[in-house]
Amino acid sequence: MNIESFFPKDIRKALSKEPPGSWMTAVPNGCIRLNSGYPAKELVPSKEIKEAVSRLLYEEQDLPLHYLGSPRMDNLKGQIQERLASRGMNISEEELLITAGACQAIDLIARILLDETAVVFVEAPTYMEALEVFQNYTNQIITIPIDKDGMQTAELEKMLMERKNEGLPNPRLLYTIPTFQNPTGTTLSQQRREHIMQLAKEYDFLILEDDAYGELAFRESPQTLKSLDTESRVLHVGSLSKVVAPGMRIGWVAAACQFITSLYWFKKDLDHPFSQSIMSAYLELVNFDQRTAVLAEKYEKKATALLNALTKHFPDSASWYHAAGGYFVWVKVPGVNTSEMLNQALKAGVAYVPGQYFFLNQEDGTEYLRLSFSYADVGEIERGVEILGEVIQSYLRK
Amino acid sequence: MNIESFFPKDIRKALSKEPPGSWMTAVPNGCIRLNSGYPAKELVPSKEIKEAVSRLLYEEQDLPLHYLGSPRMDNLKGQIQERLASRGMNISEEELLITAGACQAIDLIARILLDETAVVFVEAPTYMEALEVFQNYTNQIITIPIDKDGMQTAELEKMLMERKNEGLPNPRLLYTIPTFQNPTGTTLSQQRREHIMQLAKEYDFLILEDDAYGELAFRESPQTLKSLDTESRVLHVGSLSKVVAPGMRIGWVAAACQFITSLYWFKKDLDHPFSQSIMSAYLELVNFDQRTAVLAEKYEKKATALLNALTKHFPDSASWYHAAGGYFVWVKVPGVNTSEMLNQALKAGVAYVPGQYFFLNQEDGTEYLRLSFSYADVGEIERGVEILGEVIQSYLRK
Repeated sequence: MNIESFFPKDIRKALSKEPPGSWMTAVPNGCIRLNSGYPAKELVPSKEIKEAVSRLLYEEQDLPLHYLGSPRMDNLKGQIQERLASRGMNISEEELLITAGACQAIDLIARILLDETAVVFVEAPTYMEALEVFQNYTNQIITIPIDKDGMQTAELEKMLMERKNEGLPNPRLLYTIPTFQNPTGTTLSQQRREHIMQLAKEYDFLILEDDAYGELAFRESPQTLKSLDTESRVLHVGSLSKVVAPGMRIGWVAAACQFITSLYWFKKDLDHPFSQSIMSAYLELVNFDQRTAVLAEKYEKKATALLNALTKHFPDSASWYHAAGGYFVWVKVPGVNTSEMLNQALKAGVAYVPGQYFFLNQEDGTEYLRLSFSYADVGEIERGVEILGEVIQSYLRK
Repeated sequence: MNIESFFPKDIRKALSKEPPGSWMTAVPNGCIRLNSGYPAKELVPSKEIKEAVSRLLYEEQDLPLHYLGSPRMDNLKGQIQERLASRGMNISEEELLITAGACQAIDLIARILLDETAVVFVEAPTYMEALEVFQNYTNQIITIPIDKDGMQTAELEKMLMERKNEGLPNPRLLYTIPTFQNPTGTTLSQQRREHIMQLAKEYDFLILEDDAYGELAFRESPQTLKSLDTESRVLHVGSLSKVVAPGMRIGWVAAACQFITSLYWFKKDLDHPFSQSIMSAYLELVNFDQRTAVLAEKYEKKATALLNALTKHFPDSASWYHAAGGYFVWVKVPGVNTSEMLNQALKAGVAYVPGQYFFLNQEDGTEYLRLSFSYADVGEIERGVEILGEVIQSYLRK
C-alpha cells in the first residue's frame, strides 16, 4: 500500500520539494557554533525558570497542568500587552493571540490567508522557515532585495506598479522582518517603514511583521510597523524565544480582533497551559527592562567581537552589514561557494549557515554566509572567525 | 478595510460555521463539574513534575530551554516506544512523531490527508474537536452509529457497499475512538475490531485510531487497532494528557515512516523542548505500570459511584452504557432537551455537556448528555447526580 496515494494533490506537490529543515547541518561536537540562532547559554534564565516553576506549582497546584483555568496563564496576555505598549503598540486583549513561538504564529497566518491563488512578497534573503511555510500554500512568491537599510521599498513599489500594469493581482501578504533581520541583521529605515505602510494602503495588501528580534536593540529599537498601522493591515508577530528561552515556545500575533478570532479557529486547544503559566510566573520574577538592557550589553560585545574579527581575518573582498541589534551578521565572500566550503569549515571546527538557504532562488545565496554572534562566547567568536578566515583563504587559493 | 476579504474561499466557508469551542459552557464557580474531561485534581502529579523540573534543570541546565538538543527530549520517544511495546505495538523511532497533545496529532493528520474531495467516516456521537478539525477541510463527513460495543461495523459495511454501488468514492479516512470512547465510554468488541481492519483493506481507506483513553482500563485494555495492522493503514494517536497531565501537551502519532515524514513537513519546529524534556524527566521518576494501576482503581471507584447514583436518582426511562475505563458515561433521557435544560442544571449547581455537540447532525443528540466521572470526587459525583435527577424530574413535569 502506498500511503502517498491518499494525499491530496497539493500535499503531494509540497512533499516533492526539499524536506524542511534541510538547512540544519549536523554540527560535529566541539565545533564553534556560529550557525546557531540560539540565545547565549548564560543568558538563558534556567535558575529563574526553576524558581518560577516552584512558585507556580506551590501557588496554583494542579491548575497549570490542566487544559485551562490557571490564573497565571490568563495573566500572560496582560504581561505581553504591557511589553507591546511600552513599544508604542496599544493592543487590546481581543487583538492578541498567544502562540507556540513565532513559528506557530506564521504558520497559522499562512493557513488563514494563503492558498494557491495568493501572491506573497518576501525579502531576499529571508527567514528560511517562513519561506518553507509559505511554500506549503502557494508557488507565487516574489522576492524584494535587501540593502543596508532593509527591504528596498523603491524596488517594492516598482514591482507593484509593474504587476498592476500587466494586470497581475496585488500581493495578498508582504512578509518582512523589519528590525535586526534574519539573516542580514539589517534594520528598515524609518522612511522605508512609512513607504511600506503607504504602499500597503495603495495596493491593498496585508503585512506580516516578524518582530522576533525587536527587543534586542543595542541602542534603540525603531518604531514597529504595527505602531504605524492605522488600518489594521499589520499582523504583528512577536516571540519571547530570543529574549527569554526558545524552548518555552511563547510567541504571539497582534492583529485586528476579527483576524485573531479566525486564527483561533485553527489554533483550537493548541495552547500550552504549563509553558504559558511558567512564562507568566517567570515574568513576575524579573524586571524585564533591566533584563533587555543586560542582553543588549552582552550581545553588543559579542557583535563587536565578531565584526572586529571579520575585519582582521576575512579577505578584503569580503563585505558585511553592520548589525545594531539581533543575533546575526551577513557576510558576502566573492569567489566562495559557501555551501561547497561548509564541510571544510566543519572539519576545521567552525559551523555557519550557507547563504543559499535564505533565498527562494538558492543560487542567489552562493557567496553569502550567516554568522551568529548570539550563542558562542567572545573567545569562541574570535577563534571561530580566525579559523573561518583561514578556510576561506585556502578555498580561494585552490 | 474588511480583513475577511483577504481570506481564501474555503476559509471564509469554514468561518461561517459555529465557532470552535462553542460547546464549552461557562461554568459558575462552585458548580459540580460533571462536564470536564479533566483528570482528577489529586491524580495530577504536580509534586513529581516539580521534582522532574528541578532534576532536569540541574542536570541539563539551559539545554531543555533551547530549540533542540536536550538529551531528555530525545529520550522521550524511547519512553513512549516502550509504553506502546508493552501494549503490543512495536513502533520504530522513524514511525513515531511527538505532538502537542492528541489534538495537534489529529490536526496534522487532517492537514496532510484531507481536502474538499475527501470523504471522512466518523462515529456518531464522537469527539467534538475532531469533528471541528475535519470540518475545516471537508464537508463530506459520514457518520456511523455506535451501540454498547462501539461503532456498528455492520452499518459501516452496509454504507461502504451502498456507496460503491452508487459509484461514490471510498472514504479516505475513518476516525474512531475504539477504546473507552468519548463521549459514550463504549469499547469496540474484538470481533468488530477485526471487521474494521478487513473493511479498511477491502475498501482501501486509512484509519485514525484515537487512543487517548486506552491506558485507562479498569481491568484490561483491548488490543489496539494498530496492533492488528499489517498494512500500515492505522494512524495511531495517543496522549499523556489523561494519564499524566493535559497541560503538558504531550501526544503522538505512530504510523508508517513515510507518513510521519510528511507530518513533520507541516509540524516543523512546533516541538516543545521544555515540555517534552520535563515529561521525559517525569517518566524516569515514576513506575508507570504502578501509576496506571492506581488510576484504574481510583477512576473505577468514581465510575461506580456515578453509575450507582444514576440508577438511584435518574428516571426509569433513562439509559446509559457501562464504562469499563476512560472518563465518561453517556446518558439518554427521553423527553428531555439537554441543551435547553443546561441552564437549570447550572443554576442548581451541576454542569454537564449536552449531547448535541457530539453529533454532526446536532439534533440527533437532543436527549443525550455526557457525564464525566474523572474530575469531581466521589461525594461531588453522588451529590451532582442527585441534583441532576431532581432537575430532570422538574423538567419532565413541566
